[in-house]
Amino acid sequence: MNPSGSYNMTLLEELQRHDEEAVIDRGRVSNVVNIHYEEELEGHQTPSMGVQVPLVRQSHGHHQPHSQNHRKRDWEKDSEPGYHCKPRLFGGLIRDVKRKAPWFWSDFRDGLRLQCLASFLFLYFACLPTVITFGGLLGEATDGHISAMESLLGASMTGVVYSLFAGQPLTILGSTRSFLLFEKILYKFCKEYALSYLSLRACIGLWTAFFCIVLVATDASSLVCYITRFTDEAFTSLICLIFIYEALEKLSHLWETYPVNMHSKLDLLTTYYCKCEAPTHPSNETLRFWESNKINVSGIAWENLTVTECRYLHGEFQGPACGHNGSYAPNVLFWCCILFFSTLVLLRFLKKFKTSRYFPTRVRSTVSDFAVFLTIVIMVLMDFMVGIPSPKLHVPHMFKPTRDDRGWFINPIGPNPWWTVLAALIPALLCTILIFMDQQVTAVTVNREEHRLKKGCGYHLDLFIVAVMLGVCSVMGLPWIVAATVLSITHVNSLKVESECSAPGEQPKFLGIREQRVTGLMIFVLMGCSVFFTSLLKFIPMPVLYGVFLYMGVSSLRGIQFFDRLKLFWMPLDHQPNFIYLWHVPLRKVHLFTVIQLICLILLWAIKVSRAAIIFPMMVLALVFVRKMMDFCFSKRELSFLDDLMPEGKLLDDDKNEAEGEECLDVFILVHSQPELPRVRRRGQQESQKMMEAAAANSVQLKLGKSSSSDTPKQSSDRTDPSEINISDEMSKTTVWKALTMNTETH
Amino acid sequence: MNPSGSYNMTLLEELQRHDEEAVIDRGRVSNVVNIHYEEELEGHQTPSMGVQVPLVRQSHGHHQPHSQNHRKRDWEKDSEPGYHCKPRLFGGLIRDVKRKAPWFWSDFRDGLRLQCLASFLFLYFACLPTVITFGGLLGEATDGHISAMESLLGASMTGVVYSLFAGQPLTILGSTRSFLLFEKILYKFCKEYALSYLSLRACIGLWTAFFCIVLVATDASSLVCYITRFTDEAFTSLICLIFIYEALEKLSHLWETYPVNMHSKLDLLTTYYCKCEAPTHPSNETLRFWESNKINVSGIAWENLTVTECRYLHGEFQGPACGHNGSYAPNVLFWCCILFFSTLVLLRFLKKFKTSRYFPTRVRSTVSDFAVFLTIVIMVLMDFMVGIPSPKLHVPHMFKPTRDDRGWFINPIGPNPWWTVLAALIPALLCTILIFMDQQVTAVTVNREEHRLKKGCGYHLDLFIVAVMLGVCSVMGLPWIVAATVLSITHVNSLKVESECSAPGEQPKFLGIREQRVTGLMIFVLMGCSVFFTSLLKFIPMPVLYGVFLYMGVSSLRGIQFFDRLKLFWMPLDHQPNFIYLWHVPLRKVHLFTVIQLICLILLWAIKVSRAAIIFPMMVLALVFVRKMMDFCFSKRELSFLDDLMPEGKLLDDDKNEAEGEECLDVFILVHSQPELPRVRRRGQQESQKMMEAAAANSVQLKLGKSSSSDTPKQSSDRTDPSEINISDEMSKTTVWKALTMNTETH
Repeated sequence: MNPSGSYNMTLLEELQRHDEEAVIDRGRVSNVVNIHYEEELEGHQTPSMGVQVPLVRQSHGHHQPHSQNHRKRDWEKDSEPGYHCKPRLFGGLIRDVKRKAPWFWSDFRDGLRLQCLASFLFLYFACLPTVITFGGLLGEATDGHISAMESLLGASMTGVVYSLFAGQPLTILGSTRSFLLFEKILYKFCKEYALSYLSLRACIGLWTAFFCIVLVATDASSLVCYITRFTDEAFTSLICLIFIYEALEKLSHLWETYPVNMHSKLDLLTTYYCKCEAPTHPSNETLRFWESNKINVSGIAWENLTVTECRYLHGEFQGPACGHNGSYAPNVLFWCCILFFSTLVLLRFLKKFKTSRYFPTRVRSTVSDFAVFLTIVIMVLMDFMVGIPSPKLHVPHMFKPTRDDRGWFINPIGPNPWWTVLAALIPALLCTILIFMDQQVTAVTVNREEHRLKKGCGYHLDLFIVAVMLGVCSVMGLPWIVAATVLSITHVNSLKVESECSAPGEQPKFLGIREQRVTGLMIFVLMGCSVFFTSLLKFIPMPVLYGVFLYMGVSSLRGIQFFDRLKLFWMPLDHQPNFIYLWHVPLRKVHLFTVIQLICLILLWAIKVSRAAIIFPMMVLALVFVRKMMDFCFSKRELSFLDDLMPEGKLLDDDKNEAEGEECLDVFILVHSQPELPRVRRRGQQESQKMMEAAAANSVQLKLGKSSSSDTPKQSSDRTDPSEINISDEMSKTTVWKALTMNTETH
Repeated sequence: MNPSGSYNMTLLEELQRHDEEAVIDRGRVSNVVNIHYEEELEGHQTPSMGVQVPLVRQSHGHHQPHSQNHRKRDWEKDSEPGYHCKPRLFGGLIRDVKRKAPWFWSDFRDGLRLQCLASFLFLYFACLPTVITFGGLLGEATDGHISAMESLLGASMTGVVYSLFAGQPLTILGSTRSFLLFEKILYKFCKEYALSYLSLRACIGLWTAFFCIVLVATDASSLVCYITRFTDEAFTSLICLIFIYEALEKLSHLWETYPVNMHSKLDLLTTYYCKCEAPTHPSNETLRFWESNKINVSGIAWENLTVTECRYLHGEFQGPACGHNGSYAPNVLFWCCILFFSTLVLLRFLKKFKTSRYFPTRVRSTVSDFAVFLTIVIMVLMDFMVGIPSPKLHVPHMFKPTRDDRGWFINPIGPNPWWTVLAALIPALLCTILIFMDQQVTAVTVNREEHRLKKGCGYHLDLFIVAVMLGVCSVMGLPWIVAATVLSITHVNSLKVESECSAPGEQPKFLGIREQRVTGLMIFVLMGCSVFFTSLLKFIPMPVLYGVFLYMGVSSLRGIQFFDRLKLFWMPLDHQPNFIYLWHVPLRKVHLFTVIQLICLILLWAIKVSRAAIIFPMMVLALVFVRKMMDFCFSKRELSFLDDLMPEGKLLDDDKNEAEGEECLDVFILVHSQPELPRVRRRGQQESQKMMEAAAANSVQLKLGKSSSSDTPKQSSDRTDPSEINISDEMSKTTVWKALTMNTETH
């Protein structure tokens, strides 16, 4: 991190640098300033005691309003339409490459940390089952044309390339439900019209890749700026909730796989059995099966058959220990429940171990980093020792296509008629939207300003890599892989760098994310090699992995402001945390905002789980319009605290701010130079005198502290960010500033 | 609580009152002062911010050293031998009655609170199974002479009388393991020598009651002052640990009751069965059984028998689904584990709900108070809905002696020869020690100064009631009931009154205990009536109760300083909480003290679980001597911080203190007027300047704040309590003080 001394670059010098680097540099400097400032906000320093006491529990929530505009600053300036001199083909992509290239080697150097090993192990165990499960489902849907092995290979290849070259290597790739549905529909269609599924799919994939590259060429990714916090959070919340729901659903499915005799009588255990018997009234299908397989039914010793044999021969299960579909499986279900919840509890304990009082900081943070890996190891050992046959992770053990009638190269035309190549254009358009939305919303989430990323983002480059690999996967007959929301959030969270807690009870301070390419690379390299570890991986019980999934879903929800606001409904006034928006927006307006977001979320959920799931990405687009509508119920200022402003809104806002800037100024200084104010509000009025004195003292300090950041040129739209308005106001009075503003806007 | 205005009673007025009430009143006043002072200590007030920030997490630990001497003051003065003018028979008892009588009605009025209902429900569900389990074990040991029904009746009768008339109605009575062992040995002895067990037992019981009353008459309970914190905590820790151990042991015993086939193959489920068969090689015992019951073995359809029938007819279990002792019980064991751990997690969640941010304070504290009851209700519903046959609580359903050959009155001589009445004297001596130790150590724990009891204690009265009821129980052939440590601590904890949390994150402040007789009375009345609720109580699964037991054991450990000190071993220096003794005693001395206590604990444990368990109370006595030995390794001052001083030690200490009092004074004022000092210690030296300034400011405030407590006369031995030394020092210079001291000491 730059020491404060490095700010001393004069404004005139800055003005001479119009290239992107200067913009980024400026962005970085202002980031650093921001960190210093927010650290002050987070735990106020009381010099007379020398104790830094955290005032708030949740440290993530309340930074957001005054740092959210940074995101825009970082990439908007170089990707927003009309901002750069002339829009040229692949302009955004080139800028992305230029921006990321200088960091390339540091991306590897920075990865050589113990925390990265922990993160890699965690994410490997999180990604592997998702990819395999997805492959399994795809295999079911497509009669094994694309199954676990293809899924592994596709994810691994795309992941490796993406981790090496993408703009934001923190994003983790995976498969999405939308694609699963799409492939299902496509396969059914191909079967009905006797077309070659894999060939048609290759065509669609190549078209999609083409369209995506067109989107890259036209800098379409800059439209991401319309995905404000409102949209982003509704989407991310939904994905997290679905993740949680699916973890629980998978657990509850075990109820069907391993039925339990709920009303067994312990005294009658001697009379319990479940035997295979010849079906009393064999159906026509059964008779046909016996005939076609030349099975001599009368010669079978039915009662000696095992479960598998009985199922194969279409036998019937008879006896008091039989469920409606085979024998009751003793103990398995409850053991799975124990594994699932033990995983959750152990994981939570180990994660929280970081803030305990025991053992030195290094031990604690290492244990906390490796929590998931340790949990999985402990649970695997426990499962192994108890020996109950719980369901295990099944990894393909041979590197070959699942079906023998396909290879690793698919001819895009193949046996299909030539016009299918053109017809593929229509579904390809849908796929393009699917990919664009899934990829970019997740990327927006990863690049969130709260994460304080220092190496910049690269929306264009991200999409470009995804598009290229989509083409490759299509031709190889592998599933399509895009950014996976929950895995990406988890990855970012697992790479958080926090200050060491010097005093107990103190909240560790968030310092940044270890931005590097090593973890992503390792995850996907090892995923590709998983085929060779089958003998080890087959010991991992699935309920343990479901537990990890649930944990991931829940912990991904934690940083989302929407959930903070939801919680406010259940909180008495005096217990509300001091989120900054609670100070500036009336509570009922905050609640209204939350309710609208909640309704959107419920509608999205309804669409996602219904048959119309395929139009889900379009619905996310619809959210952008809902957000636009909200301009009518909320004032610009309220929205600036609850959400980001929409780009047009910001332009419109400029004149207004100019007018009301002067009167808001004092209020802002008072509020923002005074972190303890929110507590005072709760404490009642008797402290107001002291508060005013302290405010007076602090506002001087603020001016001194902030003067160093005044060499950062700002767009006037930043005024809505109250933490900086006093500086920009100071600046607007100088001629240098006016020159700069003109320069920026006409540029 | 008295408002500060009530202190204004002048010292001269006080001097005119020599009776106990004045002593108690004075004690109470000083208590109130203490509370005010400690509240300041706990969370320091920073007026410039108006925020009260808790500096420490564990609020119980660090009060103890400066309040521990209050206990002595409260009862020592009126029960210590030689302290009162002339020792007269039952002097202590009479004083106890005089002291408690004025509180009698308030003991009932104060019980009419919702919290008391919660406490009563909790303790009822905690006591009932312990009494029944104990009865069951006793029944096994005595062939049903004394079993669950007798245990219920005995506990209920003794409990009701004790709750109504005892000196400390917060103590909860129960049965102890020592008695179980004693009864076992006695029964075996009687069987061998063909004596009537119940009659001999009645003799022993009557003798024991007599000896106990002798102890009451001679004011022997004042020896309790030799049970210092060291002894008390070693004993209490052990009982808590045994409680935890037994909860886990009971759970693990289910493994034997409900064996699980650990290596069942799901594919072979169709071949699994466990049938009853005629024994292939019937043993002589079996043959004899068949013969004596006139069983026609060849006529039995063995394979149709249920488990119970098969066991009764001495059949054998054969089949792949058989364990080594009957059929495997599917699902029961794991379901029990789920119930057990769910109970723990739910209980912890509901208890912690009190400090959450959601819902109004009243809702939260009610939920927290009723946590155990809610948990039991939820778990019973869950168990009922799932329907797995988990083991349930079995309550006798008829009000009659378990065996038909005994009534409710036992003749102390009965069929036994006359000399057994005299011989019974010897075991009675042992029993007396058993009862005295069990009763009084628990009473000391309940009367601990941390609990800030306002209504005083009554060791003599407690013992008297126990002795009388012991006699009654003996004659009625019921088990003997004394104070139960863990239940008593739990009872006290469940009656804690805490301040409402006004700001989130703030530790609720401990205000006192709801001292009343209603909860205890209700618990034991309802226990007696449990016979009529059998149809409801039979739904309660045992694993849920084991979970509650484990929770009780763990939460009883929480207030014990010994465990705080044990934790220090694992804590890096800068994370150690600011316990006051860490400031005054070198860390290695603290560790040495802890290690000695730990060794004692391990020895006690070894004795308690070995066959020598009966001498356990004597070993607790031995601890008093170990503590005495420690006078050689530790200075008086160190011991005054780590433990209470022994009575002789205190007398010796007087002159010494007089000498070193002057030089210690300044240090003490500095330390105790300065709650943030401990944090500063960790923070390093750079803040020392500010610290000194603040200390100067605070010490003035202290003098102002403490002046109101200067009308509390103090023994000079109190000087070791640093929180008060400055006042007593001020006082010692005045003539009034000198007069008072003389008055107190010669009195």
